[in-house]
Amino acid sequence: MSIAPELLYKLQQVVGEHYVFTDEETRKHYGHDETEDLSFPPNVVVKPANAQEISAIMKLANTYYTAVVPIGGRTGLSGGALCILKGIGLSTERLNKIIEIDEKNGQVITEPGVITQVLRDAVAEKNLFYPVDPSSMGSCFIGGNIAENSGGARAVKYGVTKDYVLNLEVVLPNGEIIWTGANTLKNSTGYNLTQLMVGSEGTLGIVTKAVLKLWPKNNHNVLMLVPFFKAEQACEAVSAIFRAGIVPSALEFMERDAIDWTLKFVDGISVTIQPEHQAHLLIEVDGNYPEILMLEAEKIMEVVEQFEIDEVLFADTEEQKNALWKMRRSVAEAVKANSVYKEEDTVVPRYELPTLLKGIKTIGTKYGFQSVCYGHAGDGNLHVNIIKGNMSDENWKTEVPKGIREIFELTVSLKGTLSGEHGIGLVQKNYMDIRFSKSHLELMGQIKYIFDPNNIMNPGKILPENL
Amino acid sequence: MSIAPELLYKLQQVVGEHYVFTDEETRKHYGHDETEDLSFPPNVVVKPANAQEISAIMKLANTYYTAVVPIGGRTGLSGGALCILKGIGLSTERLNKIIEIDEKNGQVITEPGVITQVLRDAVAEKNLFYPVDPSSMGSCFIGGNIAENSGGARAVKYGVTKDYVLNLEVVLPNGEIIWTGANTLKNSTGYNLTQLMVGSEGTLGIVTKAVLKLWPKNNHNVLMLVPFFKAEQACEAVSAIFRAGIVPSALEFMERDAIDWTLKFVDGISVTIQPEHQAHLLIEVDGNYPEILMLEAEKIMEVVEQFEIDEVLFADTEEQKNALWKMRRSVAEAVKANSVYKEEDTVVPRYELPTLLKGIKTIGTKYGFQSVCYGHAGDGNLHVNIIKGNMSDENWKTEVPKGIREIFELTVSLKGTLSGEHGIGLVQKNYMDIRFSKSHLELMGQIKYIFDPNNIMNPGKILPENL
Repeated sequence: MSIAPELLYKLQQVVGEHYVFTDEETRKHYGHDETEDLSFPPNVVVKPANAQEISAIMKLANTYYTAVVPIGGRTGLSGGALCILKGIGLSTERLNKIIEIDEKNGQVITEPGVITQVLRDAVAEKNLFYPVDPSSMGSCFIGGNIAENSGGARAVKYGVTKDYVLNLEVVLPNGEIIWTGANTLKNSTGYNLTQLMVGSEGTLGIVTKAVLKLWPKNNHNVLMLVPFFKAEQACEAVSAIFRAGIVPSALEFMERDAIDWTLKFVDGISVTIQPEHQAHLLIEVDGNYPEILMLEAEKIMEVVEQFEIDEVLFADTEEQKNALWKMRRSVAEAVKANSVYKEEDTVVPRYELPTLLKGIKTIGTKYGFQSVCYGHAGDGNLHVNIIKGNMSDENWKTEVPKGIREIFELTVSLKGTLSGEHGIGLVQKNYMDIRFSKSHLELMGQIKYIFDPNNIMNPGKILPENL
Repeated sequence: MSIAPELLYKLQQVVGEHYVFTDEETRKHYGHDETEDLSFPPNVVVKPANAQEISAIMKLANTYYTAVVPIGGRTGLSGGALCILKGIGLSTERLNKIIEIDEKNGQVITEPGVITQVLRDAVAEKNLFYPVDPSSMGSCFIGGNIAENSGGARAVKYGVTKDYVLNLEVVLPNGEIIWTGANTLKNSTGYNLTQLMVGSEGTLGIVTKAVLKLWPKNNHNVLMLVPFFKAEQACEAVSAIFRAGIVPSALEFMERDAIDWTLKFVDGISVTIQPEHQAHLLIEVDGNYPEILMLEAEKIMEVVEQFEIDEVLFADTEEQKNALWKMRRSVAEAVKANSVYKEEDTVVPRYELPTLLKGIKTIGTKYGFQSVCYGHAGDGNLHVNIIKGNMSDENWKTEVPKGIREIFELTVSLKGTLSGEHGIGLVQKNYMDIRFSKSHLELMGQIKYIFDPNNIMNPGKILPENL
């Protein structure tokens, strides 16, 4: 499939010649995100400047029955931004303005192409706090966070992207521009299209502005790294901490291999790990009063000391805190640098974590794959990296999908689901039948249809092929 | 319109003869909620026991093209539970079990007919906290809270119902029973039907089970009543408190008339109010450390002292706290006992409150009505009670709707919307064009259609008549 010259010409008229790209290098660059080693370049990359241009592009796409895929920071892990039917790759990178930090109302109005870390830093300068912090926050876009309903380490206390989105300007697939909600903390005015849009992975429209809630900034935190001799006990401790009445601002789990590989992969992290530790919990509490945080840290110590742990490391300096966070945030990259891999984003009620972890290992043994697990244990959100290593291509292709299916069956049986924060996108869509009945999926398909009757808006994502 | 004898017989077969009511007294009882003086009795009241019976009822209703209206605690303020086409009034009162308080995961699984206060008390016994506290919490149902996305006094810090709903068992209009989400804190697995259901006012399905998130319980709070000589300054102070870095657990605004009428109406509230105070703020902070709460209260004092205030009352005892909360929670009832009224549930970004309040008074003067305003100022959520008083029936009918329209136009111009927590239901639906374009409303109408093609599920609510 190639793109009609006439359409190309009209796209140039809309966004300007300089912002339409058909060269191979650019198409390849925008043809992948961080999902496995997948590559699906579009026929053309366009870089519109605003909602009006995007609206015009959507109208053209409907006329020419051409797929449009919104592309953000390309850090996605489920293939949501891959142009599987080629067509138009629509980069939001020029919509990169923070329009207003509204201190009076504790809100920020932003365009979708702003990098999450940039937004966090900008509001922090005004003593405000945007808590959502995916590991990729140094390069992912706010628009992508909204599309995937991203979480991160602080979700356990502060919630995920959906909890901060008050209102969205969206270009619908037919080119109409709407505001979904209101700039208010509460809203009970018609169907909640704001929350329908969040997590819809760019299949129902393109977000062009977002109004996000902010909190006053906390000024202090305490960070501790707790080594466990047994990985399952680390998982058990997670639920025990909450039951002691503590809500940590982060509660992260890392299997031994995850840390080992990271320390080998990333330079300059001065953390020493003993070989006999099977897993670690990285635990943070935050607030405005250091003396209270010390009390909470003591309470956490009382809880974790009931398990078989080694000496707890308290991060005394900002450098040490940064090193520990760098270690945690580099795990994904480090594990992936090691081997071809597939990543699953399992999520269960947090008390079920030990059962999930044990089950994953058993399933791995059954199908002959190794896995490295880490993630946001406070949320019950465990990232499972399935490592190809020495596995034959044949087994990788046939056995691993069976194993993944069993892992998802296990998460669903534990009242969990397929994805906590990465989305379904391309690579998980054919597992959706594990969680949803055919008629339930058809209902989602009908929602897609009323927004996008020509199926041009990021087609082939979320819903299974055989629906 | 009456109900087919055959349908009646089949309903009896489904739920049992004892739970089908056609007598006038019962029909009248279930024919009203707390919305103005409206009364729309159904042809028949049914009281099913579980999701399976509700599923069977929905299938019958589709066969006989008969409207079904889910009825909860009948405390609604927008007429969502009124049987405007008669048909079947389906009371959820027998689905009144708390199925499980899951301490290990910090969740509760409940049926929809549980009274909000009952749920709050039950989880509090396990040291857990369900923060949503509408003024009607002593009689409203959790199911109704989900239908209307209810808020309450603690929403300013803890969020509204939608922020606590993780997963819903829903009987769809076609009788199918689905679980919308997962019992997890994060979820990025397909379109968010959980949040589409929350706030849909019983028009897309009937919730039969809900999984709600809980927090560990806070053990301490400080409550203060601040009298302002000028009502607009009270509104201004609201935003200033947040800008000082404080997130109060409640921040309530009451105009002078609201308090006066309440103290006259409710016995035994020992609060003395000076005639020269135009408005009061009721401010609470909560947490686990009394010394921190005192620090925060001092910071709040520093803020409010920048305005023209009188002596602040700190509630020293539980009795005094209860008296102040009783006063606040009785305002709605007291104001309504005074006169025929209409209540609007305006919401704006909180900094816009003074502009909103001033505008409402100007509009009242223009159209000749008095209003009493109070509400959740921390959320920018102002309840506007329009008092009939001595107004002629003619003016009440013709002038007041024009004034309401102007009030809503004002809220929307301030980036707010029509309803913060009461819903649109019946009485606000014909104002929806102020906030939404025709095509936007049509999109909502199409969502309604795919769930409920025969339009039998609480028809005639939310969407305007002339759509």
